[in-house]
Amino acid sequence: MSKTYDDYREDVAGRANVEDTPELVAYYEELAEADAAALWTVANKIEPWQPVSSSVPILWRYSDLREKVLKSLDLVSPEKAGRRVIYLNNPGRTDVAAAVGWLYSGLQVMRPGERASAHIHAASALRFIIEGRGAYTIVDGHKMTLGANDFVLTPNGTWHEHAIAEDGTECIWQDGLDIPLTNALEANFYAVHEDLHQAVGYPVNDSTARWAAPGMLPAGETWKNGYSPLFKYEWEPTYEALTRHAQASEGSPYDGILMNYVNPSNGGHVMQTIGASMQLLRPGERTKAHRHTGSFLYHCAKGEGYSIINGKRFEWKEHDIFCVPSWAWHEHGNLSESDDACLFCFNDMPVMEKLGFWREEAFGDNGGQQPVLA
Amino acid sequence: MSKTYDDYREDVAGRANVEDTPELVAYYEELAEADAAALWTVANKIEPWQPVSSSVPILWRYSDLREKVLKSLDLVSPEKAGRRVIYLNNPGRTDVAAAVGWLYSGLQVMRPGERASAHIHAASALRFIIEGRGAYTIVDGHKMTLGANDFVLTPNGTWHEHAIAEDGTECIWQDGLDIPLTNALEANFYAVHEDLHQAVGYPVNDSTARWAAPGMLPAGETWKNGYSPLFKYEWEPTYEALTRHAQASEGSPYDGILMNYVNPSNGGHVMQTIGASMQLLRPGERTKAHRHTGSFLYHCAKGEGYSIINGKRFEWKEHDIFCVPSWAWHEHGNLSESDDACLFCFNDMPVMEKLGFWREEAFGDNGGQQPVLA
Amino acid sequence: MSKTYDDYREDVAGRANVEDTPELVAYYEELAEADAAALWTVANKIEPWQPVSSSVPILWRYSDLREKVLKSLDLVSPEKAGRRVIYLNNPGRTDVAAAVGWLYSGLQVMRPGERASAHIHAASALRFIIEGRGAYTIVDGHKMTLGANDFVLTPNGTWHEHAIAEDGTECIWQDGLDIPLTNALEANFYAVHEDLHQAVGYPVNDSTARWAAPGMLPAGETWKNGYSPLFKYEWEPTYEALTRHAQASEGSPYDGILMNYVNPSNGGHVMQTIGASMQLLRPGERTKAHRHTGSFLYHCAKGEGYSIINGKRFEWKEHDIFCVPSWAWHEHGNLSESDDACLFCFNDMPVMEKLGFWREEAFGDNGGQQPVLA
Amino acid sequence: MSKTYDDYREDVAGRANVEDTPELVAYYEELAEADAAALWTVANKIEPWQPVSSSVPILWRYSDLREKVLKSLDLVSPEKAGRRVIYLNNPGRTDVAAAVGWLYSGLQVMRPGERASAHIHAASALRFIIEGRGAYTIVDGHKMTLGANDFVLTPNGTWHEHAIAEDGTECIWQDGLDIPLTNALEANFYAVHEDLHQAVGYPVNDSTARWAAPGMLPAGETWKNGYSPLFKYEWEPTYEALTRHAQASEGSPYDGILMNYVNPSNGGHVMQTIGASMQLLRPGERTKAHRHTGSFLYHCAKGEGYSIINGKRFEWKEHDIFCVPSWAWHEHGNLSESDDACLFCFNDMPVMEKLGFWREEAFGDNGGQQPVLA
Repeated sequence: MSKTYDDYREDVAGRANVEDTPELVAYYEELAEADAAALWTVANKIEPWQPVSSSVPILWRYSDLREKVLKSLDLVSPEKAGRRVIYLNNPGRTDVAAAVGWLYSGLQVMRPGERASAHIHAASALRFIIEGRGAYTIVDGHKMTLGANDFVLTPNGTWHEHAIAEDGTECIWQDGLDIPLTNALEANFYAVHEDLHQAVGYPVNDSTARWAAPGMLPAGETWKNGYSPLFKYEWEPTYEALTRHAQASEGSPYDGILMNYVNPSNGGHVMQTIGASMQLLRPGERTKAHRHTGSFLYHCAKGEGYSIINGKRFEWKEHDIFCVPSWAWHEHGNLSESDDACLFCFNDMPVMEKLGFWREEAFGDNGGQQPVLA
Repeated sequence: MSKTYDDYREDVAGRANVEDTPELVAYYEELAEADAAALWTVANKIEPWQPVSSSVPILWRYSDLREKVLKSLDLVSPEKAGRRVIYLNNPGRTDVAAAVGWLYSGLQVMRPGERASAHIHAASALRFIIEGRGAYTIVDGHKMTLGANDFVLTPNGTWHEHAIAEDGTECIWQDGLDIPLTNALEANFYAVHEDLHQAVGYPVNDSTARWAAPGMLPAGETWKNGYSPLFKYEWEPTYEALTRHAQASEGSPYDGILMNYVNPSNGGHVMQTIGASMQLLRPGERTKAHRHTGSFLYHCAKGEGYSIINGKRFEWKEHDIFCVPSWAWHEHGNLSESDDACLFCFNDMPVMEKLGFWREEAFGDNGGQQPVLA
Repeated sequence: MSKTYDDYREDVAGRANVEDTPELVAYYEELAEADAAALWTVANKIEPWQPVSSSVPILWRYSDLREKVLKSLDLVSPEKAGRRVIYLNNPGRTDVAAAVGWLYSGLQVMRPGERASAHIHAASALRFIIEGRGAYTIVDGHKMTLGANDFVLTPNGTWHEHAIAEDGTECIWQDGLDIPLTNALEANFYAVHEDLHQAVGYPVNDSTARWAAPGMLPAGETWKNGYSPLFKYEWEPTYEALTRHAQASEGSPYDGILMNYVNPSNGGHVMQTIGASMQLLRPGERTKAHRHTGSFLYHCAKGEGYSIINGKRFEWKEHDIFCVPSWAWHEHGNLSESDDACLFCFNDMPVMEKLGFWREEAFGDNGGQQPVLA
Repeated sequence: MSKTYDDYREDVAGRANVEDTPELVAYYEELAEADAAALWTVANKIEPWQPVSSSVPILWRYSDLREKVLKSLDLVSPEKAGRRVIYLNNPGRTDVAAAVGWLYSGLQVMRPGERASAHIHAASALRFIIEGRGAYTIVDGHKMTLGANDFVLTPNGTWHEHAIAEDGTECIWQDGLDIPLTNALEANFYAVHEDLHQAVGYPVNDSTARWAAPGMLPAGETWKNGYSPLFKYEWEPTYEALTRHAQASEGSPYDGILMNYVNPSNGGHVMQTIGASMQLLRPGERTKAHRHTGSFLYHCAKGEGYSIINGKRFEWKEHDIFCVPSWAWHEHGNLSESDDACLFCFNDMPVMEKLGFWREEAFGDNGGQQPVLA
């Protein structure tokens, strides 16, 4: 059976609506030989009325993943595997190893005393710590010790490595990267450190000591890099900030108390391609639905609740991970009437904003909340 | 035969090098069922040492394309086709209808008195006029008359439409858009104007009259959009600018006299995702080779010459179009000893720059010029 | 008679209204000995309801000034005088040698073959050429030839010098500087070039050749200085730009067709402390009145007309200079019914804008135009 | 005796060196009548080789000032005085009521239950709290409670008012404003609130609750004003930030641990014309000398020490205030070997930076420290 070219016809003024004829098909074949094609055969496909994401809303339960991740401890060594990571593979994005959109994420596990080799890449990376004691990361000579729910950056173009102290415990954390985006844009570079490890050149946790002051910055510093000079955002002050904020503000109707992790030197996103936030849903809080462009990956940092994404309900508790694809309706609820719930999130908002692609819309019907599909 | 998982092994410290075993394959299959996978099976693939573009260097001859484009005049009507465009289909990017990388381009033809319907989209668009008299474009109520080698913008989020005056001739121009990027980022929106056409609300060519002054801007104007308020860049002053520049500067070793079309309100790229330039190669000029990230599509606006791309020589003359994929070595030469040659180019430099992905490298060997492959 | 302290009393809620008493005067004297004072004795003075400029609206006729300037040719040599300049001394600002506000201006004259010594200062400077042939300026090695109504920058921190070619004629131009501001802010530095003159390091007029293209910029250039890379703005394209603009726009009700000279690399003001503009009043045009902060010095570049400033009418013709002090009502009129009139202006708008001091108000009464005082 | 015009002669190439002659004096007088003058009579005066500040280095002891300020409680009422403030009058700047350069500062005192009227002005203002309980400030409806060493903004163009709670105590704080600058630039506006007081429209201290998080900002907020959305910077987290910073960094050789208070939305200065900082000198620390442009007013917030300014030693302890004029050499020392010392400072650095006037120089001789004058 021969190829058809009129699969995307629409009978709407201003849209392509050309039926295949033998003459046209011959013309199309002639064009193909010249590395060309007729726009009207694909125009309605490549100019959709609105985005339809190829990513599927999905939730990964930590209870499931944890077991699988720990299993890798005995199956592969860091030397052989490079890094012992189980990554999240969105069913709609298996071709690019993405959790959602162009964002990669995985769970990594290391044993006490293990130390990954130092490397550098054009992709931007982050970690969100899940469990274990003694983990640390070194970024361009700055060593940072890490605890549960700490958020740490290993920005594009920095030498970085991860390790667990000898007296630590098995540690698990979530990695987040824009590897799929960097590859899609054909801009990825990779190198391994010539010594396999870097020297620590500063007092431990100096980045936080110098750059994490509220409303203050070190004088005389000029920070020109596209990413934050603050590499580690600790959980305790983050949670405290959300709690204080919640006392002074109603927050967003769609997100409750939502704060972005920022580059303190300019108030912008933490990295050039990845934004991150932590949000707090007050006891019993139920938000309204909206949708926007951009791909968002959530991680429950505290409590339990649910999100309704394109009409489907996903229940989450600590360390569960779920995604909201581009232009998907979504709203969140806290299942507890007594405790707050916190969601960590990373996303490609910087890309959407810088390229002029950010768009947002409130759900108008049904009192602003989606009917849940059976 | 069963699936293999160890296709990307590398025997290099810091890289993944895990051989399939029955136990591991069983583990991988178990992970797949949980929408997860082991990073080490794909790590070396998704973290390449440097970009390898899926786009192929290729040249489209105008003499070939012109005939095909004109043929479409009798084959389809604008009403049925929407727009009568033959697009350039890079052999490595046929899945996304791109000429190179994430950039779309096509040749459009219209007859005197034809008028396309007004529409709006999240993609950014441009035209470069090739031949014919009487073409005009309307952007958000600003009407612009167009001549050969004029460059005109129809930025993202503007209402725009193209037409040919009744007393004009058949016109052909090149379209350039970031449709593949906009789709890849799942951010495309499209709408047809409710009246199918917009009213002209300003004196004809007012955008150029107000914003194309050398070293001057209209006082009291605040332009907040992400794209240039100057929508039309005429050929005559453009060529004059290059000529004057050539008398006062050696130019770039890689590009001769290269000038960017800019947003005069801030000196930046003309649109948020697409940059454009015109360059002049002096009689007999032969540049040195370099490579950089980003996808570039060239159009010979004047003269004749050649480009060597990844060691392959492409000869071009007026209105031929060719591409330089990301990280491909390239250099240019003017074949005439008496006349200058001009190359129009549009590209995704704004994306590379804003996301921190721009990287550039000079060709070091062989006196800075590539050996040409047989 | 003893000093009084209650000169600024106002009987308005929220304002100081304290009468001198012997006890208070004794207290004030005690404070004075401790290098202190009571705010309420000066509060109403230092917190006025609105600005009252110390500068006086005034017009200097070129016919008067020209004769005086030429006289200096025989009275002093450039070697003795440094520069042969007659400066404009606003009657309200004689203490700081300003023409208006914190802006200095003077008329300079040089003979053919004369060459001033090269120097550098923290003040920003400009010239507007009035008459003569053969004048040139060198800025950081860039030589620029100058003709009538050309506008040239010698920005802060650049080595610069002025001269007249041997085959030229006596030349007169207007100098404009922010010397009073630089001194007031205690930030002025001055040095004479160790060779007394600089070498010319570029093709003549290269700055204009490279940076004065309409809607284009040299690619690959990164210009980080706070001032424009375009040092010379020629009269012909300037007037042409105004004329084209006038055909496509009504212009401003207060200023007719007003265009700012800009830094093409970012669309901002030409220098960090001084802005400049050229405006065109169409035949018979009469603008409406407004007032704003900032000090403005005008120079009639073409035609003849009048300005009404705080109710007083000033008639001007070619090369007359007049000032509009901060917050003074002003409006302009073209006295010719057949020819347009052009006003060059330089001002401290960048200072007002950057420091958050810009404020503007339309004249509401009398159809928007001021009654003229007898 | 007749006026002389040759007071500023210098016998240096490139400088003016014109002796008075009867002919020239007659010429000068003729020019004066035309509101003009000869540049060479003042050139060397208005183009100094480097800044010589009219401000005098001076220290005001809090022990002296406190007594005088308290005395005002019985001498004037807030209703009559507007505000009960004793301002610091630099001996070189009495004409403009400035403490140093163009910066005003005073000590204000209020009694429990007193409430100043709400007003607005184009000047930027700040307070630094010295003593007392119950003080609060309201800025555009945001009420902030204040304790010792808290730093609070009342930016230009905001409605603001100060008060002491009924159950508070007498409170003293330092005011800092750019009134002299605003007046000098002829840009001051003033208005009293029509209700004399504003309503509180937000939870108390909401500005701090929302904007003072370390490394985080409220999502979805767009702050476009030229000043910080964070109005109150509390002492406790400020001191804690300095202490943490001191553990991770050597700090500046000239200033020890110096941190700027910043606008968290962009990392810039707190207001458009005024910058502020807090610095910590470690026990026994003695810095090196440097000088820079800009006017700086210091307030000892903790400990005791000394500063050497243009060779003169000034000893300070808690709440003493002293100034460093533009381009004055200065260095600091902590007199305690066991406790740290803290200096609050506000200055006009934003003005220097934005206008391109910032310049800095290290003291090269004598091991980097000034010889102290007898």
